[in-house]
Amino acid sequence: MALSATLERLASPWERLAQRNPLVGFVDTLLRGCGQVMFQNNPLTGLLFLVGIFVNSALLGLAGLIGLLASTLTALLLRADRSMVRAGLFGFNGILVGIGLAFFLRWDALLVVYIVLAAILSAVVMMALVNLMGSRDMPALTAPFVLTAWLFLFAVFLFSYVHPSVLIQPGLPNPRAAVLTDLRPLPTNLTGAGLTALNLTEAFFRGIGEVFFQDNLATGIIFFIAILVNSHGFNAVLSAIAVGGIFYVLTWESALYALICALISTVVMASISVLLSPLGMPALTAPFVLSAWLFILPKDGFHILHPVALAEVTNPEQIRRTFLEREHPSAGTGDKVQSAS
Amino acid sequence: MALSATLERLASPWERLAQRNPLVGFVDTLLRGCGQVMFQNNPLTGLLFLVGIFVNSALLGLAGLIGLLASTLTALLLRADRSMVRAGLFGFNGILVGIGLAFFLRWDALLVVYIVLAAILSAVVMMALVNLMGSRDMPALTAPFVLTAWLFLFAVFLFSYVHPSVLIQPGLPNPRAAVLTDLRPLPTNLTGAGLTALNLTEAFFRGIGEVFFQDNLATGIIFFIAILVNSHGFNAVLSAIAVGGIFYVLTWESALYALICALISTVVMASISVLLSPLGMPALTAPFVLSAWLFILPKDGFHILHPVALAEVTNPEQIRRTFLEREHPSAGTGDKVQSAS
Amino acid sequence: MALSATLERLASPWERLAQRNPLVGFVDTLLRGCGQVMFQNNPLTGLLFLVGIFVNSALLGLAGLIGLLASTLTALLLRADRSMVRAGLFGFNGILVGIGLAFFLRWDALLVVYIVLAAILSAVVMMALVNLMGSRDMPALTAPFVLTAWLFLFAVFLFSYVHPSVLIQPGLPNPRAAVLTDLRPLPTNLTGAGLTALNLTEAFFRGIGEVFFQDNLATGIIFFIAILVNSHGFNAVLSAIAVGGIFYVLTWESALYALICALISTVVMASISVLLSPLGMPALTAPFVLSAWLFILPKDGFHILHPVALAEVTNPEQIRRTFLEREHPSAGTGDKVQSAS
Repeated sequence: MALSATLERLASPWERLAQRNPLVGFVDTLLRGCGQVMFQNNPLTGLLFLVGIFVNSALLGLAGLIGLLASTLTALLLRADRSMVRAGLFGFNGILVGIGLAFFLRWDALLVVYIVLAAILSAVVMMALVNLMGSRDMPALTAPFVLTAWLFLFAVFLFSYVHPSVLIQPGLPNPRAAVLTDLRPLPTNLTGAGLTALNLTEAFFRGIGEVFFQDNLATGIIFFIAILVNSHGFNAVLSAIAVGGIFYVLTWESALYALICALISTVVMASISVLLSPLGMPALTAPFVLSAWLFILPKDGFHILHPVALAEVTNPEQIRRTFLEREHPSAGTGDKVQSAS
Repeated sequence: MALSATLERLASPWERLAQRNPLVGFVDTLLRGCGQVMFQNNPLTGLLFLVGIFVNSALLGLAGLIGLLASTLTALLLRADRSMVRAGLFGFNGILVGIGLAFFLRWDALLVVYIVLAAILSAVVMMALVNLMGSRDMPALTAPFVLTAWLFLFAVFLFSYVHPSVLIQPGLPNPRAAVLTDLRPLPTNLTGAGLTALNLTEAFFRGIGEVFFQDNLATGIIFFIAILVNSHGFNAVLSAIAVGGIFYVLTWESALYALICALISTVVMASISVLLSPLGMPALTAPFVLSAWLFILPKDGFHILHPVALAEVTNPEQIRRTFLEREHPSAGTGDKVQSAS
Repeated sequence: MALSATLERLASPWERLAQRNPLVGFVDTLLRGCGQVMFQNNPLTGLLFLVGIFVNSALLGLAGLIGLLASTLTALLLRADRSMVRAGLFGFNGILVGIGLAFFLRWDALLVVYIVLAAILSAVVMMALVNLMGSRDMPALTAPFVLTAWLFLFAVFLFSYVHPSVLIQPGLPNPRAAVLTDLRPLPTNLTGAGLTALNLTEAFFRGIGEVFFQDNLATGIIFFIAILVNSHGFNAVLSAIAVGGIFYVLTWESALYALICALISTVVMASISVLLSPLGMPALTAPFVLSAWLFILPKDGFHILHPVALAEVTNPEQIRRTFLEREHPSAGTGDKVQSAS
C-alpha cells in the first residue's frame, strides 16, 4: 500500500494544475485515456503504461499515441460530455486501436491515415454504445476497440494500399489436431499463455493481487503487450477484475463468481478464435467483453451479489469500503479493508 | 382430453407435498425444468421426458441430469428469483446443454467438468437475457442453451482435453451440389427430417395436434432426441407452438401466422447450417429462437393478433379460454374450447 | 429547384384522389414504397424508380413488384399501423428483397414462391425492428431487407428447388493478393465502383448534390441497380445522405460527420465482403445500415450535431428550413436555404 499512497500524494498538485491550465488538462485527459485500459482513471498509471509501450516498441507507442490523440480530439470536437472526455473514456479505445492496427498491419505511410480514421470511428462507436447501454447502466468496456479494429482488419484483404503482417494467416480449423499451436504460435514466456488450469489460476490470482495493491506498473505493461500477442491470459484477468471488484462489490461470493467468469472467458477466447480462424484474424479483447457483459447483465437478478452503479465505479478497495460503510455505518474503515484484502 | 384430466388429478397431491417438503420441492423444480423444454411447467411431463431420454441412451440421460442439476443449483446459490427457479426456467437450458455437449463431444472424464461449467454459464446467460429482454416482455426461449452450447462446441478445436465426436465435420459449402446430405447425413426415419413441403406440413400439424390434446409423451421424446440429431422438424414445430398458441392467443389468424413462422424457420435452419458448415457445427435450436423472436417482437404492432403477457403464459387451451372469457364474459367455457380445438 | 416545384404541383391532385379512392390509395402506397428506398415518401419518385428498374430488366422489375405487393399486403392483412403502411415503410423492403433474390438466384417457377415468402418475412422483420428500436427513436433503414435476403440467400445451398446464379462463388480470402477483383468481378462503368479516394469523393459529392436539388431520377435508377451489382458506391452515398441531412440537420458540421461516415462505410463494405467471402455472398446494403446506425446512435451525445426526431423526418431542405425557423424565428426562409446549399 506504500507505493499507492506515494502515487496519490504526487497526483494532487497535478490535478489542480490540470483544472487551471487547458494544455495540462488535455495532457491529463490523454494520460487518463491510457490508464482506462485497465479501468484506472489515473494520469500517472496512464503515463507509466505509455512509457512501458514505448520501451517495448517505439513504433507501437507512436501508433498508440496517434490513436489516442485522434479519438480524444474527435470527442472534443463533436462536443461529447466534458466529464466523460476528461475521464479518458474516449482515449482508451483510440490507443488500443492504434496499437492493434500497427501490430497486425505492415508499417506504411497510409497506415497512419488508416489509424486516424479508425480512432475517429472508435470515438463514435463509444458514444453509440454509451447511448445504447447507458439506460441499463451497462459499461461499454473495450467493445468500441474490438468492433473498430475488426472492421479495419477484415477490410485489408480488399484494400491494395494497406497490408496484413505475417501474423494474419487464414485457414480452416483442423478438428482432429486440437493443438493450440495450430492456429497461432504462442509465446511461452508470458503468464497465462498456455491453457492449463495451473496457468489460469496463477494468472487469475496475480490479477486479483495486483488490483488489491495497485502495484500494477510492470504487470500492466505485460498485460498491455499481451493483448497484441495473445489474449488468453489478459482476457481472463480483465474479466475477473471487472466482475470481481469493479462492477460488483468484492465479496467472497463475487470473487467465486469472477473466477467462473475468468474460466468462461478462456472458453470464449477459444471459441472466438475458432470462428475467426478462416480469416486468420485475432480475437483481441472480445472474449473479455463478451464474458464480462454476460456476467454483469444479470446484476439485479442474483441477490447474493452487490452490483455497483456505473456512476460509482472507482476501484475495488474504494467500492468495497463504501459498501461496508453503508452496511455497517459505525465500523472503522481502514482495518476492515486491510482484513478484506 | 381424458389423459390430460387424469394427469391433472395425479399432480394435485404432489404439488402440496412439493410446497411442504424442500427435497420434494427440489425434485419438482428439476422435473419442471425438463418439462419447460416444450413450454410445459409440469413435473409429470418433465418426468416422462427424462425417462424417455434415459430409455434412448443412459449416457445422454446422465449428461442431461448433470446439466439440469448444475444449472438449477447455480440459480439457487446465486439467489435468483425463487418463483423463476421453481418454474424450471433455469433447469431447461441446463439439461439441453448437457445432452447437446454429450452428443457432439466424445465421452470422457473431463467432459463432465466441461458440462458442469457450461450448465453454470447457461444459468448466468438465462438471467442476463431475462434482464435484457424482460422490459420488452420478450421470452428468452432456448437462447441460453444455443449460445452456451455453441461457445463450448466451437472451443473444442483449441482444447486438447475434450474431443469432437464424428458428427462435427468442418468443410466448405458446395454451391453447385445443393443436396441436403452434403453437409451432414440425415436419418430418414424421423418426422420432418427431409426438407420437403409434405414433411413440413405433416410435422407442423402433428405439433399443433399434440399441444391441443397434451398427449405429448412419445412425440415429446422423439422431438427431444431430434434436437440432437437434426433439428429441421423440431425447430418448425417449436416455432409454430410458440407463435400460434403460447405467445399469441390461438385464433385462425395466429395459426396462419404460426404456419408462416414454421415455414420461415426451415429457411433459417438451412441458412444457419450453411453459415456454420465451415466449422461443421450444428444449428441446434437457433432457428427456432430466431424465427420465434422475429414473429413475437411485432406483437403490439399487428392488431389482428392478440399477444399474451409473459406473466400470463400457461398453455394454449388455458390462454385461449381466458381470452374468450374476457371477450365474451357471459359465454360458457368448456364447449367454446372444444369447438376451437 | 424548378423540377422539384413542377413535381410538387403534379402531386397535389393525386394525393386528394388517393385519400378518396381505396384502389388509388393502394397504388399510392405501393409507389411510396419504391420511393422510400431513397428516403423519398413520394409516389412520383417511386414511379420513376419503378420505371427505371423495368427499363433495365423486365424480370427484375417483375420480381420487385411481386416483393412490393407481398410485403405491403402482409402489413395490411396483419393490420399494421395504417399511417406506416401508407408511407410505404413496409413496401420498400419488399421490393428490395424481390430484386435482390431475383438477381442472385436463377429464375424459376419456385423462385416466385420463395420471393413471396421472403417479402412476407421482410414485413414481419420491419415491424419487429420498429418495436425494438422505436423507443430509442432509431430508424430500421434497410435492415429488414438485408436480414431477410441473407437468410434466403444462405439457405439456397441446402435447398434443391432454388439455385444460386453465377454471381455467388464461395471461396477463401487470399490475404497476399489484396486485389479487389479477387472476390467478385466489378463493373468499371459505374460511379464509385473502384475503391479509390477519387471515386469515393466523386460519388459522395454527387450524392449530396442530388439530395439538394431533388433531381434524382437518373442517378436514383443507377443507384438502385448498383445495389444489386456492387454496393460500394451506393452504401457510401446512402450513408452520407442519411447522416448528413435526414437524421441530423444539415450543417457544415453534420456534412463533415457524414463524409466520415461515408468513408467508414467503404471500410465496413470491404470488411463485410471479406466475412461473407467463404460463402460467396453479397454484402447488400448492410454496410450502409451498420455505418448509419453507428453514426446515428450517438445523436444526443455529440452536442455539435442537431438530431432529427423520426416523426419529423421529411427531406434535407425541409428539415433544415424548420430547424432554422426554430433557431431564428424572424429570418426569411427561402434565401437561407439557397445560401446553405
